[in-house]
Amino acid sequence: MYPVSLQELIDEFQKLPGIGHKSAVRLAFHVMNMPSAKVEKFIGAINKAKTSVHLCSKCQNLTDKSVCDICSSPRRDSSIICVMESPKDVTALEKTKEYNGLYHVLHGAISPMDGVGPEDIKIKELISRLTPEVKEVIMATNPTVEGEATAMYIARLLKSMGITVTRIAHGIPVGGDIEYADEVTLTRAIEGRRAI
Amino acid sequence: MYPVSLQELIDEFQKLPGIGHKSAVRLAFHVMNMPSAKVEKFIGAINKAKTSVHLCSKCQNLTDKSVCDICSSPRRDSSIICVMESPKDVTALEKTKEYNGLYHVLHGAISPMDGVGPEDIKIKELISRLTPEVKEVIMATNPTVEGEATAMYIARLLKSMGITVTRIAHGIPVGGDIEYADEVTLTRAIEGRRAI
Repeated sequence: MYPVSLQELIDEFQKLPGIGHKSAVRLAFHVMNMPSAKVEKFIGAINKAKTSVHLCSKCQNLTDKSVCDICSSPRRDSSIICVMESPKDVTALEKTKEYNGLYHVLHGAISPMDGVGPEDIKIKELISRLTPEVKEVIMATNPTVEGEATAMYIARLLKSMGITVTRIAHGIPVGGDIEYADEVTLTRAIEGRRAI
Repeated sequence: MYPVSLQELIDEFQKLPGIGHKSAVRLAFHVMNMPSAKVEKFIGAINKAKTSVHLCSKCQNLTDKSVCDICSSPRRDSSIICVMESPKDVTALEKTKEYNGLYHVLHGAISPMDGVGPEDIKIKELISRLTPEVKEVIMATNPTVEGEATAMYIARLLKSMGITVTRIAHGIPVGGDIEYADEVTLTRAIEGRRAI
């Protein structure tokens, strides 16, 4: 019903994650009605992000520099590396302003079911960073089957190299309700209990 | 936390309707991870839609031709014009495959509250189409205050020109529940009753 080129734009929007048919139509009409200057700005932002953003040569996080701001900061403690699955996880931890070490982004987790092996994520890049300066590696992968397996795999690798490997604590989320916590989380919360 | 150009892309996505912060981050990451060829296709679709789609010189619906497919079709009954508020409404009615006349898209409705007067929507373009060939104009604007006002305004204009003006029926939607119908709809349903 729509002109071919409008239908094509709707189809393109519909390929994006979380965008169904109705949203795609709304977005396409919105773009059609945007002033040309704003459309150019939108396209420019896509092009610029696509061309200038790449992985930091050290921590593999997203950056538009050769080495990212965190890796190149003299104020960060380079003796600790926190290993995470995705750049979004880094952003979440950075928001707390409580962690002052470096990061390493794996870009995924080991998942044999999905055909993702240890060589498909940034593990060898992590190994090559482990100078004697590094005292501790914190495994902050997700508490999923894949995240746990990845943490265990890397922990075994690094322990053989004599590096302290830690795992982030699992337990009841702050503000969470013990009554509704699942059994695994509750078990971990008891196991991880601390003196007060 | 994100590289500047990635943050700018997130901001651009967030300006789109119905896209909040989390969706914008997801979309930006998705575009970042898309192969370059697919990103170019996406940008190409935006550019093409933006440059090639314009209003049909007759019915004011969106088209990439000078006169749209419906207006130029010899199989459509050019003695009836159905007046609608938006191109999406036309698509909805076309899907029924029950209407064989022509359309006229107003691109809005008269709304003094929003500063939209009769001269701000495509009313004069409708008037200029009213050759003696046109026998009936169906007012299919939305059953809202603005849509009703627009229908009444145009109906008065056309009646003085001796053209039959009709209004789409209001009533209980098929599959709807009389118990939960609002009073106005129920009143209209009774008023519009027909012999069976």
